[in-house]
Amino acid sequence: MKKLAIVYHSGYGHTAFAAQKVFEGAATVDGIEAKLVAVGGDHVTPWEELKNADALIFGTPTYMGSVSAPFKGFMDESSKVWMGREWKDKVAAGFTVSGSPSGDKQSTLQALSTFALQHGMVWVGYDRMPEVYTGVAPENARNRLGSFSGLMLQAAQTAPDQSFLPGDLASASDFGQRVATLFAKKIR
Amino acid sequence: MKKLAIVYHSGYGHTAFAAQKVFEGAATVDGIEAKLVAVGGDHVTPWEELKNADALIFGTPTYMGSVSAPFKGFMDESSKVWMGREWKDKVAAGFTVSGSPSGDKQSTLQALSTFALQHGMVWVGYDRMPEVYTGVAPENARNRLGSFSGLMLQAAQTAPDQSFLPGDLASASDFGQRVATLFAKKIR
Amino acid sequence: MKKLAIVYHSGYGHTAFAAQKVFEGAATVDGIEAKLVAVGGDHVTPWEELKNADALIFGTPTYMGSVSAPFKGFMDESSKVWMGREWKDKVAAGFTVSGSPSGDKQSTLQALSTFALQHGMVWVGYDRMPEVYTGVAPENARNRLGSFSGLMLQAAQTAPDQSFLPGDLASASDFGQRVATLFAKKIR
Amino acid sequence: MKKLAIVYHSGYGHTAFAAQKVFEGAATVDGIEAKLVAVGGDHVTPWEELKNADALIFGTPTYMGSVSAPFKGFMDESSKVWMGREWKDKVAAGFTVSGSPSGDKQSTLQALSTFALQHGMVWVGYDRMPEVYTGVAPENARNRLGSFSGLMLQAAQTAPDQSFLPGDLASASDFGQRVATLFAKKIR
Repeated sequence: MKKLAIVYHSGYGHTAFAAQKVFEGAATVDGIEAKLVAVGGDHVTPWEELKNADALIFGTPTYMGSVSAPFKGFMDESSKVWMGREWKDKVAAGFTVSGSPSGDKQSTLQALSTFALQHGMVWVGYDRMPEVYTGVAPENARNRLGSFSGLMLQAAQTAPDQSFLPGDLASASDFGQRVATLFAKKIR
Repeated sequence: MKKLAIVYHSGYGHTAFAAQKVFEGAATVDGIEAKLVAVGGDHVTPWEELKNADALIFGTPTYMGSVSAPFKGFMDESSKVWMGREWKDKVAAGFTVSGSPSGDKQSTLQALSTFALQHGMVWVGYDRMPEVYTGVAPENARNRLGSFSGLMLQAAQTAPDQSFLPGDLASASDFGQRVATLFAKKIR
Repeated sequence: MKKLAIVYHSGYGHTAFAAQKVFEGAATVDGIEAKLVAVGGDHVTPWEELKNADALIFGTPTYMGSVSAPFKGFMDESSKVWMGREWKDKVAAGFTVSGSPSGDKQSTLQALSTFALQHGMVWVGYDRMPEVYTGVAPENARNRLGSFSGLMLQAAQTAPDQSFLPGDLASASDFGQRVATLFAKKIR
Repeated sequence: MKKLAIVYHSGYGHTAFAAQKVFEGAATVDGIEAKLVAVGGDHVTPWEELKNADALIFGTPTYMGSVSAPFKGFMDESSKVWMGREWKDKVAAGFTVSGSPSGDKQSTLQALSTFALQHGMVWVGYDRMPEVYTGVAPENARNRLGSFSGLMLQAAQTAPDQSFLPGDLASASDFGQRVATLFAKKIR
């Protein structure tokens, strides 16, 4: 079994809800043992567990145009891991959540990929062609927002389980499955 | 009168249509003489005119995650202007059009702002709070996509005059007016 | 007098040392009242003072490819200011310090400019042509690293007052002076 | 044998010279058949050959803060390949050359990675810790500039074979070898 950890910070529960969907998608793939790992705030980062994982998917809200401060705290704490090259050649991917369709989320994905590449990781994006192009209704379409560097999700300011369109939730599990599949089949 | 030029490339007419709306918004501002300047393809860039302008708004489609190749041709041609610092301290802003809500358009705006800042220009973004937050229907909302580094517009693959939501067109003229107003009132 | 605040976080004193040089450059400009404001850690952000400033220069180390977590904490805290549009139309600029010549510092400057543009601020970069091009020795050259979106500085892992090349320190005061001058003369 | 193509545009020969070094590094790896492919200008892009390659390393000068216009022409031309998802799951990496140490080269690497991820490719960076940190003299150090998202090289405005420091050339072959090795050993 290959180990995949979804490492996320959630401020108000929306990113946690999305992380759960990414987890569910990844967990459908044979040979993959997926796990959710919350970081930031009172959470103690399980560094040993992350060291033993083969792939890490990073998730964070977009706050003020980049990753949340608690997630940045996790990133900065990883500088010892960086010095030791513990994550070198592992697979990495990322997703982010904010209130607008675009909402400067690409800036967050760039911060995540720059971070992962500093660690010497291999970056996997979201390959799904926006399904709107093939006639699927926007509310049901996967990759509705049109992002390839990673997964972008839009959440309304309502309770997490009511704040996402069905297509965005389907995108989250699709993305988890894509990363896990590529990882299981193509990357040793 | 201060001179403002909207410098754009359009592949299929959608960016030209958006540029016209940006122009119309800028032209409403007292003391501003706005002008449309198409670049790329067979167009000969009027370098002297750009030198005499006080502000430049750059517009391009997003193709394959960045500015269009013809617009990049214009950017590369400007290296002589760059050497001579002809555009130093002028005002700059940018907009881009693509088919998806996000569609990696932020990457294009970063390319435009990096370019303008290489020239020593001052970069003005789009300050409008997404009107969806205040209850305006998405199709009519200004800054619907939620972009602040510059204006993002989404165009369907239909005829240019039918491919934009009313709110996106209102955003374009609003953006032109914002840049021109800031320029006329605040920046000498 | 126009008010300019240099808002920075420093982890080990290098960014504080650079901020002091930026301050000294800005303070030479007639009509400018410059001030240093440290944020992050135990510092209490003087929000009222920042509201009253006309220009803000942001400074942060580059940690793991972006702004430091304490600086990101400041950015996230500013979301109330963002909602109230308190900083709209103010002038903004940024600088960052890390150990390598490039060191993914552009990613940090992008995070700073994206942040400022979310606030509706006007972004001023560093206009100085790299003086290496005109025959100045690298150790004395201003804008040695070749960055235009903002100021990049390289610091060795020694005491802050011994970690910068003379040209990098000259760049810092030159940058402070450039922002203050443009602000005093051109932007009301 | 796995096929790796180094796809580059060179304006004045410096990027071609660097591409040759990347090629030499890749060619040392068992099981890899490396090839140089020039694009832009009068070159006809061998699309069928690129379709048959398993990995593509993109190389371009940084002009005005992003990829060169001829390289962007190649990127835009690839939109048919993008529609057909021909490059999905292939390995991608990138390098860029300019005159300054930083020189806004990260913006170019972001354009290249955004492009590759639009194609559904997997992005591999440069994992080498800057050797300056371990006491190697700057002129001989690999990853001297400190870039992880891809390879950055600095070239003086002299003849290509005299314009690079020995460490930068060593970085180029090291980078080619790293991508090829990761590809041969880890990614099927």
